[in-house]
Amino acid sequence: MNRLYLFDSTLRDGAQGESISFSVRDKLNILRLLDELGIPYVEAGNPSSNPKDREFFEKAEGIKLRNAKLVAFGATRRPHIAPADDPGLEALLAARTEVVCIFGKASAFHVDQVLRTSREENLRMIEDSIRYLRANGREVFFDAEHYFDGYREDPAYAVQVLRTAARAGSSCLILCDTNGGTMPQEIFETVQAACNAVAAPIGIHCHNDIGCAVANSLMAVQAGAVQVQGTLLGFGERCGNANLSALIPTLQIKMGYDCIPAEQMPHLTRCVRAVGEAANIVPDNGMPYVGRSAFAHKGGMHIDGVRKVPASFEHMDPALVGNSRSLLISEVSGRAAVSAMLHLDASDSETAEVVRILKEQEHEGFQYEYAAASLKLLVLRNQHKLTPFFEVIYSRTIGEQRGNWEGTGNGSSAVVKVKVGDSCEIGGGEGEGPVHALDSALRKAVGRFYPSIEDVRLIDYKVRVIDPQDATAAKVRVLVESTDGQEVWTTVGVSRDIIQASLQACVDAAEYKLWLEQKKTEGNA
Amino acid sequence: MNRLYLFDSTLRDGAQGESISFSVRDKLNILRLLDELGIPYVEAGNPSSNPKDREFFEKAEGIKLRNAKLVAFGATRRPHIAPADDPGLEALLAARTEVVCIFGKASAFHVDQVLRTSREENLRMIEDSIRYLRANGREVFFDAEHYFDGYREDPAYAVQVLRTAARAGSSCLILCDTNGGTMPQEIFETVQAACNAVAAPIGIHCHNDIGCAVANSLMAVQAGAVQVQGTLLGFGERCGNANLSALIPTLQIKMGYDCIPAEQMPHLTRCVRAVGEAANIVPDNGMPYVGRSAFAHKGGMHIDGVRKVPASFEHMDPALVGNSRSLLISEVSGRAAVSAMLHLDASDSETAEVVRILKEQEHEGFQYEYAAASLKLLVLRNQHKLTPFFEVIYSRTIGEQRGNWEGTGNGSSAVVKVKVGDSCEIGGGEGEGPVHALDSALRKAVGRFYPSIEDVRLIDYKVRVIDPQDATAAKVRVLVESTDGQEVWTTVGVSRDIIQASLQACVDAAEYKLWLEQKKTEGNA
Repeated sequence: MNRLYLFDSTLRDGAQGESISFSVRDKLNILRLLDELGIPYVEAGNPSSNPKDREFFEKAEGIKLRNAKLVAFGATRRPHIAPADDPGLEALLAARTEVVCIFGKASAFHVDQVLRTSREENLRMIEDSIRYLRANGREVFFDAEHYFDGYREDPAYAVQVLRTAARAGSSCLILCDTNGGTMPQEIFETVQAACNAVAAPIGIHCHNDIGCAVANSLMAVQAGAVQVQGTLLGFGERCGNANLSALIPTLQIKMGYDCIPAEQMPHLTRCVRAVGEAANIVPDNGMPYVGRSAFAHKGGMHIDGVRKVPASFEHMDPALVGNSRSLLISEVSGRAAVSAMLHLDASDSETAEVVRILKEQEHEGFQYEYAAASLKLLVLRNQHKLTPFFEVIYSRTIGEQRGNWEGTGNGSSAVVKVKVGDSCEIGGGEGEGPVHALDSALRKAVGRFYPSIEDVRLIDYKVRVIDPQDATAAKVRVLVESTDGQEVWTTVGVSRDIIQASLQACVDAAEYKLWLEQKKTEGNA
Repeated sequence: MNRLYLFDSTLRDGAQGESISFSVRDKLNILRLLDELGIPYVEAGNPSSNPKDREFFEKAEGIKLRNAKLVAFGATRRPHIAPADDPGLEALLAARTEVVCIFGKASAFHVDQVLRTSREENLRMIEDSIRYLRANGREVFFDAEHYFDGYREDPAYAVQVLRTAARAGSSCLILCDTNGGTMPQEIFETVQAACNAVAAPIGIHCHNDIGCAVANSLMAVQAGAVQVQGTLLGFGERCGNANLSALIPTLQIKMGYDCIPAEQMPHLTRCVRAVGEAANIVPDNGMPYVGRSAFAHKGGMHIDGVRKVPASFEHMDPALVGNSRSLLISEVSGRAAVSAMLHLDASDSETAEVVRILKEQEHEGFQYEYAAASLKLLVLRNQHKLTPFFEVIYSRTIGEQRGNWEGTGNGSSAVVKVKVGDSCEIGGGEGEGPVHALDSALRKAVGRFYPSIEDVRLIDYKVRVIDPQDATAAKVRVLVESTDGQEVWTTVGVSRDIIQASLQACVDAAEYKLWLEQKKTEGNA
């Protein structure tokens, strides 16, 4: 099988996407995920651009990577100075990565108008910078910025840039469609011409400004490119970069290239969603291969077709990429589909009642797609198969905020009163904010009756404002993810009072844990 | 100029997208918008599939369309019955549209496995149905379903299907990549072969399952297709249909085809957003041409470049499609960008200080891209050009939540103490949750000194958990949008205490309002 080298830039070009902002911890988590998936090169920021990226490179040294090589990103030296005097190149070396990627102008227009130096000096900047980094022991990838625009305007100069970089010792020359406006056929021809003009390996870096980043990358590979740059979820400047999660299965499964370890392919969907979580972004449902809707069938004909022969309306088995088929409930599908989803008996009259309640709750702003534990509790309660383990009588929170903004308030405290049978317990707690205080008070009160609840930890907390136009009186939906070290479950609460919504989700989280235990005990009995 | 015929299926294939649900009124609104934009064919549902679509066609007769022809969608007749006895064809005629579009199987595999009839009968179904509809005065488009899969398996049969439809009188044969798995080059070759094999005009219908729907449509046009089917925002089964808003500018502006009236092109962005509104969907920021981020620049080099020469990092002038450029402030933007956006002098030492503080704040979790008012205040404070109008001494909130989940708590109350000069005022407020109570208490306290603050309303409130893994002790970022009826501004707060973060954003909102007034007064003086 032919090897193709994937290069992920989520942490660099991806961070340039609007509304993307990674903490250092997010970046480290994403690096681990990409490494696990088997991406060979992970570009992780420009160490000269900001302190966050510098901190990242320091901390990343402590991570043992199995598949990925970390790549620091920067520019060629500035005009008319020695490479050793260039602070950007110095910062690149200080990142202490084995591989660095530097960009230089491949467009004469850009050299004249944006860089505002001579074409000869631009070539010297490229050559000097690469030689300097090579002399310091680095492998150097060269991003030929604006290559396609440059080749269109002045092909001889564009090719000269590539030859200069290759001669200086760059091990891969990446042709960048920086503005993202190039058409698929032109990408093919330009990459082919570059492959013929220089002996060094060629790479491709596409943007999605005309909606062709994925196709353009495929065309480039067909024309001879061996490195494919993109971002796992398509994050990036403006309309984003080539979406690697859309490219990987096409390249590997449909075209037969070797991109990631075969045993990792079924983890693709999970990995994409985990990177989305780390980035605090809900991946688009319509994402090829990995989106929640990628194998979701809604039209009656389509549902009928896949039930007879899956391949009839699926271009690939979703299991190959770790995704799954779903048949969607809509005006036409109704009860049969719902009962199948909840493993209920469709003929059961209870099913109709569950569907009715479910629809009512969704109308109120609940969303159960990601809160399976709350959904399970809803069904069990409705079927009278679950007696509540405890009852919350009330909760009260008190908070104090300071006038100077030192990051936290003066602390909050909370009391929660719960009842089990005829006994009551009042738990008290404090925390950095009212929700934190409330969560610990609830745990203490319930813990008196059910000590195992102390093992439960909340590991994720999300807030979504449902009707933002109602401002601070808007309804919010809180999702809470909990674990007892073995199982992980998610619960939901909705209210105009964020504390109330959080309490509701925390109560469901505790009830679910107690139900799990009861089930286990009954199983052992 | 060569004419290309656009065919929008937002109301039919688009309605098959997950989480898309149109009311009849939504559908009528979208029809009007598409007509206004100048789309020549609007496919609007299958009248035999559900009562909603039947009602739509009745009501649509009352709308005077200027550009669009309404198209009803359906299937060929069922096996072994006369067309006049087929309820689907009957419903199609009852929709009383000038044009109808029917689909038939172009894949032998599908005829055998899904339709489960003979290949000869499938051809007769196509021929009979088209002839019957023609005899009833309809123009007939024929969707050759699964054409690309069919052509791959049995090219002779696929071509025979096209010839049959053409002979029966269909005025356009649309090749459908129903499962969305076909690669760009294969699309080109297959469309070219079809154009050579039949004399009738050829159309293209792509799905986005491998992320190539837009590119595949472009390849089909280059191979000779004259009708392009898609949906304006890319809605559709699974990963969606070809996104027409991404295709229109490329086809018309870059490739020179005549698609929509030239004077409508600057309305494209507005129209897409209006269709999004009607569909109750927030269009993806990264949408080519029309997305909010499509011409948003964030990387320092990019901002520097577009300021020198817009074409340097833009493949097209955003005004051509009615969109606009934006420069985003963040830790990745350099000094030049920050100074330009804030109208500072880049050489000024204060600018460097502002950039430093900005980067530090982002490191703390602030994000100023959408909080321009907080950014402005940050700069003014740093330049000692703003004396705080008031100081918050403390705030306290008390909340009570009930055990039964009736949507809200028992209500919250808050006190906020502010100081202006030597005077203090304590404001009290209550609300559905603590933030609501706090906001009203703050307004009351500040209002004693500055009555105009009472005109300020919060119109949007967003919460984002920054480090979700810290669960309820996680840091949150609150964005608040305010208005005084004339201006609209956004402010930000960050804390581990959601109340503290909200207070911070509300304080900035009030300060910004008071600063605006001061500026006005000074201007008048």
